[in-house]
Amino acid sequence: MTTSAPIRLRVFSLNCWGVRYLSKNCSERFALIADLLTQEQLDIVLLQEVWCEKDFLFLKKKIGNVYPFSHHFKSGFIGSGLAVFSRHRIHDAFLYRYSLNGYPYMAQHGDWFGGKAVGKVLLNINGLAVHVFVTHLHAEYCREKDSYLPHRVVQAWELQQFIRHTSAGADVVVLAGDLNMHPEDLGTRLLRNYTGLRDSFSEATHFDGCEEGFTHISENPYTHTDALVPFGGGVRIDYILFKGSGEVDVSCESLSTTKGPVPGQPFPYSDHEALTAHFLFTPTKKGNGCSEREFGCVSDKLPELVNMVNEARTEVKVGLHCSERMRHTAARTGIMGLVLLALELAIAAVPLFALGAEQPFPKASFYLLGALCFAILLSTLMLYVFHCMELKALQGTEEQMRLALSSLQERVKECPKAQSSDRLRSPLDAEDSGLL
Amino acid sequence: MTTSAPIRLRVFSLNCWGVRYLSKNCSERFALIADLLTQEQLDIVLLQEVWCEKDFLFLKKKIGNVYPFSHHFKSGFIGSGLAVFSRHRIHDAFLYRYSLNGYPYMAQHGDWFGGKAVGKVLLNINGLAVHVFVTHLHAEYCREKDSYLPHRVVQAWELQQFIRHTSAGADVVVLAGDLNMHPEDLGTRLLRNYTGLRDSFSEATHFDGCEEGFTHISENPYTHTDALVPFGGGVRIDYILFKGSGEVDVSCESLSTTKGPVPGQPFPYSDHEALTAHFLFTPTKKGNGCSEREFGCVSDKLPELVNMVNEARTEVKVGLHCSERMRHTAARTGIMGLVLLALELAIAAVPLFALGAEQPFPKASFYLLGALCFAILLSTLMLYVFHCMELKALQGTEEQMRLALSSLQERVKECPKAQSSDRLRSPLDAEDSGLL
Repeated sequence: MTTSAPIRLRVFSLNCWGVRYLSKNCSERFALIADLLTQEQLDIVLLQEVWCEKDFLFLKKKIGNVYPFSHHFKSGFIGSGLAVFSRHRIHDAFLYRYSLNGYPYMAQHGDWFGGKAVGKVLLNINGLAVHVFVTHLHAEYCREKDSYLPHRVVQAWELQQFIRHTSAGADVVVLAGDLNMHPEDLGTRLLRNYTGLRDSFSEATHFDGCEEGFTHISENPYTHTDALVPFGGGVRIDYILFKGSGEVDVSCESLSTTKGPVPGQPFPYSDHEALTAHFLFTPTKKGNGCSEREFGCVSDKLPELVNMVNEARTEVKVGLHCSERMRHTAARTGIMGLVLLALELAIAAVPLFALGAEQPFPKASFYLLGALCFAILLSTLMLYVFHCMELKALQGTEEQMRLALSSLQERVKECPKAQSSDRLRSPLDAEDSGLL
Repeated sequence: MTTSAPIRLRVFSLNCWGVRYLSKNCSERFALIADLLTQEQLDIVLLQEVWCEKDFLFLKKKIGNVYPFSHHFKSGFIGSGLAVFSRHRIHDAFLYRYSLNGYPYMAQHGDWFGGKAVGKVLLNINGLAVHVFVTHLHAEYCREKDSYLPHRVVQAWELQQFIRHTSAGADVVVLAGDLNMHPEDLGTRLLRNYTGLRDSFSEATHFDGCEEGFTHISENPYTHTDALVPFGGGVRIDYILFKGSGEVDVSCESLSTTKGPVPGQPFPYSDHEALTAHFLFTPTKKGNGCSEREFGCVSDKLPELVNMVNEARTEVKVGLHCSERMRHTAARTGIMGLVLLALELAIAAVPLFALGAEQPFPKASFYLLGALCFAILLSTLMLYVFHCMELKALQGTEEQMRLALSSLQERVKECPKAQSSDRLRSPLDAEDSGLL
């Protein structure tokens, strides 16, 4: 099936900041993005934060002649914001919605309403099965006191699980998106090391773009510059990751990013910078036609992985404690509401028992108190249900991590070399360390 | 890696009806189930409706010496109810929660609170990668007027997608669970035909159990017999499905079910019957070490699949209309609540404008009306958000189905034989028709 000629593939990724009525110059920027995409004639375009169906349809109409195949992933209240445009037929699309994604009552952050997820599309490029993933993880609003960290770690865990489990039949895997994590953050390391995905920024032969590959920079007029000062004027939180298989060698020939303001244009494409990666697929003859097996002792990164999973488990446990505390608070407040209600009913009963006695409590306050009781009971009930669900998701992940750890430790025992040769191989070998 | 000797595997599946305080004889039945499992010495035990962590821990303690590896999948408010016990190490566990699963306000049915899902565990049995799936779909409360049908069709669609996408690296795939669908229901056909999974009931060389393989029978004292009369005293809604790969031939040597009341015991194991399947894995040499490729033109069932996906799409569209109607109702009721509130505020403003005038409206009714307005606004807001999310999930599935259809139609065009040879092959060839 596989062609023997090398294939070039150009992949584009951008967080479009498409929050209608809130993002600045939204429709003008989508028009700019459409022009850029038409002009660039890429193979696959992976977009995040295309929240509004209208904007997706606008893009589809404008660039449909260049990219005849497209898919908009639906999820949550607003949508997942994920969209794919492709010059190659999309054979299949599949969405995995993360089990945790912030809190509905944190409406000012809004992540919960977005139903964040990872979308997968399946392409057949000259007979090669190319599995393309696009995702967007929960935003980081305060790095010093990041209350969403456990949620983001759970998302990173589910992301690596989804990719590992669904790409065993892939010749090439590409993942792009806004991970909202720095390159050395726990979630990024977990993702890279568990899946064997390589970072196009560190692998690209040529790089043209912002300093250190930053994708969220202070030069961008839409960015709040203060938050970026401690990081040297920018952070790298958008990625294009990739890996080949026994069937295909994949190399990244070049990576480029946009650089804030667009010359000759009144505004930039988004508050993030866009990434474009050029890949070269070289079909090999060494492969047996399928990817690494699950139980192969292929990795010499096992001890590192064990540490990483342990670290992630600790983070999830922190989340568990917070969630338990919140659930207790909800339960206690609910009980308080019940006590208040009982008290009120007791007061209401006074005229019944002491016949002829007047109601001692002013009526207005009485009804207001009743309404308050019901509001407390209803909201604490909902909070209790929500935090129970959060707790279940955290417990589930923690148990999956425990399972993974015991399996990894078993493999460390079976492969004594894994215990000694850690960190001896070059980053270029990372692909072989995929644990698929 | 693969051993060349044939392997026998015994798989057990039971919906345990473990609803604490509601199911009859719950803890006594779990003790009976533990005895049965200890006595039977199976390889893999796949349980549904183990809702309570305590019951899972009880089983774990009682049968842990026979089944040292176990996993309880967490999800939703109550849990997913799914549990796995195994004599073989569980290397990895992964959970996919269905995007739709009933309505939170249908508390009497309770499915929404269960967070129904499909769980996957990865076993390595003598070097073979055995991917084991366990699931439980939304219950069917009224077959004639089944308002949950679109949700169940979406679940069946997501189930087949999850299995297809995650089992490309599998040597053997086993799926067991309570599908809440009859053998010829749309969802069951979709699942079997899309994944190539074979039904152990139709494939087993020996069968010992209830007539027609029924798993929910009128002889069971916990069953409401009336509902089963139109179906001849029972329905088959629990399944063990399986398939091999290029690497391994899988055959089902026997299948048995329990038959309602347990002789010598005061009550049956559950309101469902348990299934036990004996499989024989025969490693082949014909394989190339991996499963079918995604783009192979291996299926002569393409036209049938096209029809089935079309049928499923129609069902999802029905759901879309219902969901849209419900969203409109929520929006309209919310607007009514707003109008009421505005009216009340206008009444409240009377004494302000007409100085000296008395409040014309009795105070008690005034406050009650206010509370009613807030209750209407809050509940319609939540309903609106919920139905928006339902709509998004249905739209997403409908679009995935449309994609799948166009891809299938493309393949029908490429394989002219598919257009003519439909239904000519025996059911035993079903495995080859997997579309992975």
